[in-house]
Amino acid sequence: MDKFAVLGCGVVGSGVVELFEKNKALIEKRSGRKLEMAYILDLRDFPDRPYGSKVVKSIDTILADPEVTVVAECMGGIEPAFTFVKACLEAGKSVATSNKELVAAKGDILLQTAKDHHCNFFFEASVGGAIPIIRPLHKCLAANDFSAIAGILNGTTNFILGKMITADMDFASALALAQEKGYAEKDPTADVEGHDACRKICILSSLAFGKHVYPESVHTKGIREVELKDVKLCMQLGYAIKLIARVQRLENGKILPTVMPMAVADDNLLSDVNGVYNAVMVRGDGISKAMFYGRGAGKFPTASAVLGDMIEEVQLSDTIPAQTWENVGSADFIEDFSQFSAERYFRTSAANAEALTEVFGEGVSEILTMDDHESVFTVAREMNVTEVEDAVKALSAKGIRVLAEYPILQP
Amino acid sequence: MDKFAVLGCGVVGSGVVELFEKNKALIEKRSGRKLEMAYILDLRDFPDRPYGSKVVKSIDTILADPEVTVVAECMGGIEPAFTFVKACLEAGKSVATSNKELVAAKGDILLQTAKDHHCNFFFEASVGGAIPIIRPLHKCLAANDFSAIAGILNGTTNFILGKMITADMDFASALALAQEKGYAEKDPTADVEGHDACRKICILSSLAFGKHVYPESVHTKGIREVELKDVKLCMQLGYAIKLIARVQRLENGKILPTVMPMAVADDNLLSDVNGVYNAVMVRGDGISKAMFYGRGAGKFPTASAVLGDMIEEVQLSDTIPAQTWENVGSADFIEDFSQFSAERYFRTSAANAEALTEVFGEGVSEILTMDDHESVFTVAREMNVTEVEDAVKALSAKGIRVLAEYPILQP
Repeated sequence: MDKFAVLGCGVVGSGVVELFEKNKALIEKRSGRKLEMAYILDLRDFPDRPYGSKVVKSIDTILADPEVTVVAECMGGIEPAFTFVKACLEAGKSVATSNKELVAAKGDILLQTAKDHHCNFFFEASVGGAIPIIRPLHKCLAANDFSAIAGILNGTTNFILGKMITADMDFASALALAQEKGYAEKDPTADVEGHDACRKICILSSLAFGKHVYPESVHTKGIREVELKDVKLCMQLGYAIKLIARVQRLENGKILPTVMPMAVADDNLLSDVNGVYNAVMVRGDGISKAMFYGRGAGKFPTASAVLGDMIEEVQLSDTIPAQTWENVGSADFIEDFSQFSAERYFRTSAANAEALTEVFGEGVSEILTMDDHESVFTVAREMNVTEVEDAVKALSAKGIRVLAEYPILQP
Repeated sequence: MDKFAVLGCGVVGSGVVELFEKNKALIEKRSGRKLEMAYILDLRDFPDRPYGSKVVKSIDTILADPEVTVVAECMGGIEPAFTFVKACLEAGKSVATSNKELVAAKGDILLQTAKDHHCNFFFEASVGGAIPIIRPLHKCLAANDFSAIAGILNGTTNFILGKMITADMDFASALALAQEKGYAEKDPTADVEGHDACRKICILSSLAFGKHVYPESVHTKGIREVELKDVKLCMQLGYAIKLIARVQRLENGKILPTVMPMAVADDNLLSDVNGVYNAVMVRGDGISKAMFYGRGAGKFPTASAVLGDMIEEVQLSDTIPAQTWENVGSADFIEDFSQFSAERYFRTSAANAEALTEVFGEGVSEILTMDDHESVFTVAREMNVTEVEDAVKALSAKGIRVLAEYPILQP
């Protein structure tokens, strides 16, 4: 008999308990073990729920029970989650977490702690909710040298951008609707400013390239400044504006993680990922590319991922070497954002084909000009940040203002 | 030091050897082991290749070396692959295979043999090439009660149907092009008649529901009869005709696996899976739905999946309980195709709204009528096989012939 414990009985934690009880027979068959959901750590009591009697108030109760082999952390935030998870790992109990903030900030320490105590720290639920992505990366694709990962990793911003496209709403109205539907929090900063997506791309980057990438090292831009006008004009040019969390390995061997709104071509599957769904595209030298798609959040989708981790952990007798990364003590392996290079979408105050060709050289697409003379076009040539700045200045000297600019996601 | 061996040095086998040698340092780090590609079993010699000296002619050489812990089977076909794989497993050597025919026909026996000898029989490469789907199903999604799986699992037919859509080619011309490009074999029967997709849905059904589903139990219809006319008319109604391999669990608890061309609505991501790509949509009570997308075949994509299996197998000390299924000795758990039910697309010899409403009741869509009076429409009401037959007869009595009919994939 192995015992499970759950830390935090909020949306995800209660989902873990309920999904486990619902599918217990199936889960026991698949894990080859007898299992019991033994403890739920929460400050609150839940007398009316069937699992009310399992609620405990102190982590020590869980730590003291040697039959507890696997613990789910569903509290969120860094403390006390970090202290509790570390204590569990030090007691040789494997941990599965849905807490991306914890993994992005403390993953290196917790992975090392797990290794030192021959147990595992898993976090499939921390990126992409229900989507299997962590295990595919380090197991199924373990023979690949990865070159890029790009994903829609935040359902809230994807819902907002989708409403701007389909319902002609501006950012503020779409955000208000997301809040009304419960997809965005009252303080939407973490989602809207890209911090949530940033934590997730940190986790994927760390796993794919083996070195801890901290959120501070990632150029992060949210969607607050995305204008309805550009969303609609991009559509006319065959692109959807999406908040893309991405990491690429450059020719110099460094990696470049970014979070920012990008123009995604209509023939890229990521452009069709709508509403609160998430998707991750992975490129490697063996697979070429693969995509993973599913619900990015929600009670049972996230619980499904946490339980999937717990079911594997209970069967393992030692740490999995591939599911880890190191703290290399510097960020030298991360390239500066100034080196970020991409094809671009531009909106300018006037169309002047001659001036544009002079500034951009070859690669300027057909120019779409509106009644107010504003014009949009794409440049089919990779431009880095300095080149864009230079182009903005050169256009300015010709009396043309750049009103908006988006990098285009390479296919 | 663990030694790997590869059986069969064709496209996939040579890919396994080459990708391993290319990424050996990475693979050793991720697996936490020193590894050597020690033997390649093939009747041919490869004196000009860097691994030429590793070629052996007898399986006994591999069986006799106790340092060989993991073997890749990339020969294809049932014999001698079955005999060789079984012998490896009996010697306690885990096996990874790309051979869907072997898994669909003999998976139950080989999984039991692996269990008896405390090793593993893995087959990630047998379905969807590079796409991680086997491990996500039994590991990441292990807490889910599955209700349906639907996929585009054959790249050749998907390429052909795609050319019919985008290049206005009829079936015969598109097949000829696929053969010219090397996507279809000279004898295209296994792809075109749906046998290849059938083997793959057998494997996914067996894994998801725990009981071996043999190809003979699956209603399988290929794409040879798909007319360009219907491909184009479906498009006008907002659907793409795709060869869909599918299994659903019915309310009576039985499962119903099918392979057949179906109409897939434009807002379903599967409708955007083009060319030689594959994709699998999975439904479960925890995740709601998730999709996996990638290259369905090819040297390195398939090799990537085989190596991913080998890298995990070398780290395992016993059989994984979830990655298995049983032979239950009967096909009673499989529902008869007569119970298959879906909304439908119809093409008829004439439009007669009154007659159609009389026959189908509510749910007939707007009718699209062509110059030759042929008409297409959908029926938004699930109809089983008998109901379709009855409708065909009833229309016939009114002088209207049904010229084509496709079930619509539910979202």
